[in-house]
Amino acid sequence: MGRFTLPGEAGMEKEIKELMEKWGVDAIRDSDGTSLSEELLELGLEVYSTLCLIRMDNEWIKKHPECRQQIYLLSERYTATEQGLKINIMSHLYGEQFEPNTDVDMNKYWQVMDRTSGERVVDWTYDEEEKSITVKNAAPFHEYDVAFLAYQNWEPVSMYNHITNNWTKEHKIPIDVRHPEAGDHILKVLQEWLETHPKTDVVRFTTFIYCFDLIYNERGKEKQVNWFGYAACVSPLAMEQFAKEYGYELTPEDFVDNGMYNTPFKNPTKKYLDWMDFNQRFVSEYAGKCVSLVHKYGKKAIMFLGDHWAGTEPYGKYFKSIGLDAVVGAAGDGVTTRMIADIPVKETEARFYPYFFPDVFHKGGDPVKESQEIWVKCRRAILQKPMERMGYGGYLSLAYKFPDFVTHVSDVARQFNEIYEKTNGRGCDKTGIRIAVLNTWGRIRTWQTHQVAHSLWNQRCYSYLGALEALAGLPVEISFVSFDDIKNGDIDSDTDIILNVGDAGTSWSGGDNWSDEAVVAKIRRFVYQGGGFIGIGEPTAYLREGRLFALADVMGVQKEMGFTASINKPEHSEQGRKHFITEGIAGKIDYGEGTGMIYRASETATVLDTENRSCSLVVNEYGEGRSLYMAGCPYDHRNSGILYRALFWLSKREEDAGRWLTGNTTIERNTIDDGRIAVYTNQSGEDQSICLKSGRILALDPYEMKIIEE
Amino acid sequence: MGRFTLPGEAGMEKEIKELMEKWGVDAIRDSDGTSLSEELLELGLEVYSTLCLIRMDNEWIKKHPECRQQIYLLSERYTATEQGLKINIMSHLYGEQFEPNTDVDMNKYWQVMDRTSGERVVDWTYDEEEKSITVKNAAPFHEYDVAFLAYQNWEPVSMYNHITNNWTKEHKIPIDVRHPEAGDHILKVLQEWLETHPKTDVVRFTTFIYCFDLIYNERGKEKQVNWFGYAACVSPLAMEQFAKEYGYELTPEDFVDNGMYNTPFKNPTKKYLDWMDFNQRFVSEYAGKCVSLVHKYGKKAIMFLGDHWAGTEPYGKYFKSIGLDAVVGAAGDGVTTRMIADIPVKETEARFYPYFFPDVFHKGGDPVKESQEIWVKCRRAILQKPMERMGYGGYLSLAYKFPDFVTHVSDVARQFNEIYEKTNGRGCDKTGIRIAVLNTWGRIRTWQTHQVAHSLWNQRCYSYLGALEALAGLPVEISFVSFDDIKNGDIDSDTDIILNVGDAGTSWSGGDNWSDEAVVAKIRRFVYQGGGFIGIGEPTAYLREGRLFALADVMGVQKEMGFTASINKPEHSEQGRKHFITEGIAGKIDYGEGTGMIYRASETATVLDTENRSCSLVVNEYGEGRSLYMAGCPYDHRNSGILYRALFWLSKREEDAGRWLTGNTTIERNTIDDGRIAVYTNQSGEDQSICLKSGRILALDPYEMKIIEE
Repeated sequence: MGRFTLPGEAGMEKEIKELMEKWGVDAIRDSDGTSLSEELLELGLEVYSTLCLIRMDNEWIKKHPECRQQIYLLSERYTATEQGLKINIMSHLYGEQFEPNTDVDMNKYWQVMDRTSGERVVDWTYDEEEKSITVKNAAPFHEYDVAFLAYQNWEPVSMYNHITNNWTKEHKIPIDVRHPEAGDHILKVLQEWLETHPKTDVVRFTTFIYCFDLIYNERGKEKQVNWFGYAACVSPLAMEQFAKEYGYELTPEDFVDNGMYNTPFKNPTKKYLDWMDFNQRFVSEYAGKCVSLVHKYGKKAIMFLGDHWAGTEPYGKYFKSIGLDAVVGAAGDGVTTRMIADIPVKETEARFYPYFFPDVFHKGGDPVKESQEIWVKCRRAILQKPMERMGYGGYLSLAYKFPDFVTHVSDVARQFNEIYEKTNGRGCDKTGIRIAVLNTWGRIRTWQTHQVAHSLWNQRCYSYLGALEALAGLPVEISFVSFDDIKNGDIDSDTDIILNVGDAGTSWSGGDNWSDEAVVAKIRRFVYQGGGFIGIGEPTAYLREGRLFALADVMGVQKEMGFTASINKPEHSEQGRKHFITEGIAGKIDYGEGTGMIYRASETATVLDTENRSCSLVVNEYGEGRSLYMAGCPYDHRNSGILYRALFWLSKREEDAGRWLTGNTTIERNTIDDGRIAVYTNQSGEDQSICLKSGRILALDPYEMKIIEE
Repeated sequence: MGRFTLPGEAGMEKEIKELMEKWGVDAIRDSDGTSLSEELLELGLEVYSTLCLIRMDNEWIKKHPECRQQIYLLSERYTATEQGLKINIMSHLYGEQFEPNTDVDMNKYWQVMDRTSGERVVDWTYDEEEKSITVKNAAPFHEYDVAFLAYQNWEPVSMYNHITNNWTKEHKIPIDVRHPEAGDHILKVLQEWLETHPKTDVVRFTTFIYCFDLIYNERGKEKQVNWFGYAACVSPLAMEQFAKEYGYELTPEDFVDNGMYNTPFKNPTKKYLDWMDFNQRFVSEYAGKCVSLVHKYGKKAIMFLGDHWAGTEPYGKYFKSIGLDAVVGAAGDGVTTRMIADIPVKETEARFYPYFFPDVFHKGGDPVKESQEIWVKCRRAILQKPMERMGYGGYLSLAYKFPDFVTHVSDVARQFNEIYEKTNGRGCDKTGIRIAVLNTWGRIRTWQTHQVAHSLWNQRCYSYLGALEALAGLPVEISFVSFDDIKNGDIDSDTDIILNVGDAGTSWSGGDNWSDEAVVAKIRRFVYQGGGFIGIGEPTAYLREGRLFALADVMGVQKEMGFTASINKPEHSEQGRKHFITEGIAGKIDYGEGTGMIYRASETATVLDTENRSCSLVVNEYGEGRSLYMAGCPYDHRNSGILYRALFWLSKREEDAGRWLTGNTTIERNTIDDGRIAVYTNQSGEDQSICLKSGRILALDPYEMKIIEE
């Protein structure tokens, strides 16, 4: 039985028949830029059809330009000199993507701001020809910027595909179905489509309505990317409906947010939470209608997580009401794999990398290597939480030219199936250790912390996300809890360890939540009474009266912010790395970009490592509980190994560790059926071996997985 | 003619006669632990006598314990558990130094604080036996601390000497002359002393009344050291007088300041500025009386900068009223040398390191090396601002055992004299470049930034202080200006370059002064119209709405704080180090602990260097002006060289640079008499050479100085 969705392509019929066998293909799909031939539709495969509702009728939207999707944009900042100030609002934005909306009451929907005084400017004019704002009485040497509504004349994902593949097709304009006539029209289009596509078994929505924040600069390159943004949900209509429902009006500043665009990296305002909720309800309701329609035609409805998924919030409270049969998403590492796998839905499907696009599948490219390094991260995650299906995207004709890759994918598919089947879809045994990842967002951002978009590497973020990547593949239970959960209730009695990781002030660390005495006291009590705490980077950070870490007592470390240089700091202990959590860990630990000026702040703290005179690895005992501080934790087998050992130490299960650890951090061990079967995976690109308890040597090829009855 | 003050020691008469010749000794002094014999007094040398007024009469203070000096102390923080809370207030303080003052109304003068809620606790009891506070209804898992007044039973400088030299003498108790009977008594003691010491020519006060903050921990080691502190000026009497004069009362928290003790690293509160002023006036007035008395006896009065100098503030507005004839201070580097040399007083004297103490002058010690490395830094400063006198401290009998050192000091003294005489005490020619060091304190902290005490190395501080160290020895005019100077007036029209250096939030960077739109606009205008700006570390930092640097536009850089990770940052330019300011500078630049996540924020900015993916050296053009950003600037010849070149570039005097630079950053060139005489100094411990304009090669031995008529 296969679990494999193949991107089909007319003209590849022979090859696809071959791959049905080799890869276990049981479903075939089209995509933006490909179509399926009659012959392909007759192969007996399940047929997936990709639908992007909001770009399905370009003729209609051209006739109803008022129904185009919109977005709030912020110009760059400009400094006024003695000579006054003119701001070209589009100078750093892509003219083909956006068109300033001058149809509205510009005094209300546009905003000119003096960023030096923080005051909104009222006296300005707009030159439509030049697309420039003139501030009449600008204060010399103050900075100004302009927030304005813009129509979206080019749907940004389609635009990305267009530019990447050098298409010359017409630009697709996104339709805003919040306009009743647009909403009705698109439902009608969908119905017609369903009528005329009887061979489709599964409708794969990409996704429903609004794209995440994807703003291109004047050269057509990404300027602003926020996978979790709601900036493109906006329109005067939405703002009016919002005001009516919530009793207050949103202003342009509520959207552009001084250039932060309400990034999830910051603690959200009440207004922004309202705005998210408002859009989630609308999106879920409309998407629910689409799904019902699909079901009415006897087809399944699934959604692609990514692209136009704003407001669907798979971990939000309205997601279930959409009624989807499955979710498919790009699995680029363990974190994004778990982000899809853990969604509360009947089935999930991983679309693995690399995409069959010319950037990897070109002469001299090494798609096998690209795939292997990602696959072994995804595999760790799937071992904990198997997924029902897998697949790839892009052009099969490109990938098929690489026979090694074809063979490699056979192996990936075999492993994928084996994991699912051996574990009956339930995943490997768990250690019983339960970790609560604590940040401002909690559950709604499950596996969605510290990232700008779909496992794209980001500076400094990697130093934090690595801890989540490690956990994604360890046999532990993970929950994502918010400060509100702790304020409004108790810490779940099942919790063994609380993890707080991130930069000071960010939502991931928690910002001003750490000024809440109830939160601080509850967590202190939790640890004091025997709980575990992991802090990475600038955990529990809220700068108050010169002190940064609210839980310096729990962690045994504090960060010198420059206000207590006069205080002689306690000596680092001389213990070095002799500790349970670093046992058998060789080599220099990589803390990524790390955190500086961390000093030992408690006599009970033990400094295991330092970097640039700053404590980088510290354990502490606090009452009956224990704590671990790390200056940063990029993902690698060494850090994953330290973290894994630390979980046993923090939860006082040191004696259990032997059952789980292999003594070689590049070889991970999972078990099935309460230990009856062992799964050994080599995470490295080198041959590795370990000595099993039986005394036998187990050798693994690079990246190999071996399942053994023990 | 000599300019050399020697620490005399009975029994060293023969050696001293020899050194009078070798070192040019013309004055002799006693010190804590040494005395001068009759023979020494008859050598024809000027006689300096060291007086520490507040420890001159131990018998009297033992009879008047209410007149002991006091201090506010803060206990450590303790977490309350379910079992209530008892705090031993002295557990981390030195019992021989402090005695809690229970003679006062403890409800008023003591303070128990819930640091988790920020509220003062009223319900507590004190156990005098145990020296413990019990908080009756402590909130579980809140942290508490205790601020309390304490008598000082051991004067901390004397204590340091005592412990270091293993003395068994009686502990000296410091007298608070604010008590009228104590003040009168000490003036009487001084008068008697003057009567009975006719051979003394110069009274050297160390210093007058209150010691800087010097708090020892339970093991007798420094716990808190703040050279600029006023914590030890406190007493209930002072607080009462203050309340009467200022119309409001100070609380314990105003002194302990949550453990920061009003460090100069933070922006001062209005209350603290009042407290400083209140004490400066008292100290200056009392010191003035002492100085008048000394003058009445035909002797000179000088003060040692350090020890009990709190409130004298040599760069403050009351200093001149003391009427001193000279100031002497420890010269440990260029910065501290200038700190003394620039004091507006008739004469200044440098007490060079090393101190003749056993920590350096022991078998196997290398006092010459210790001295050389410090001397070449001090020499740079003296070349700019010569000092009238030099000297050493400690026990001559120790130093005399090192003949190499005796020879070396002859050389130092020769150079010292030569610099003074060749420049007629006015210093070398100046480039004409004028730099304003901008911080919250301005003039009163001239050469007193970023240090905990007398050129002691401090983590991270060295990365900032290095810039000042470089400037201390360059032929430029330096002024220290405050934000208030800029708010209340204009930027001095003579200013070429503004320098802002330090950590975000600190007084050195400026903290919330950067939220002041007038300050920001005035500095923008200054640069825009042609001024120069140097930012080091986290300059112009005030975190507002996710943005840190207020003058990101001027500097062309911004720091990512975690709130704009979604914004793609401009590419670094590929220029590398090809720029005027890095011309001829080889090797890796040391930014010390540096600053991370700095990105290019302006299209006009040029990134000359990066470190760990963060911009570390950036130049920018802003209107007619120019800016330099450095991630850190420890002092070394390379950074000093870059900074020097940058001064020419920033002030658009590139064409002048050739006259001043040698092309080898280890050899510095100064000139005298408008260029007629050149002074070449080798700052390194290796042989160095350069090619002079004449074509001749100039070679210098390690650390050598050569004065040449050109």
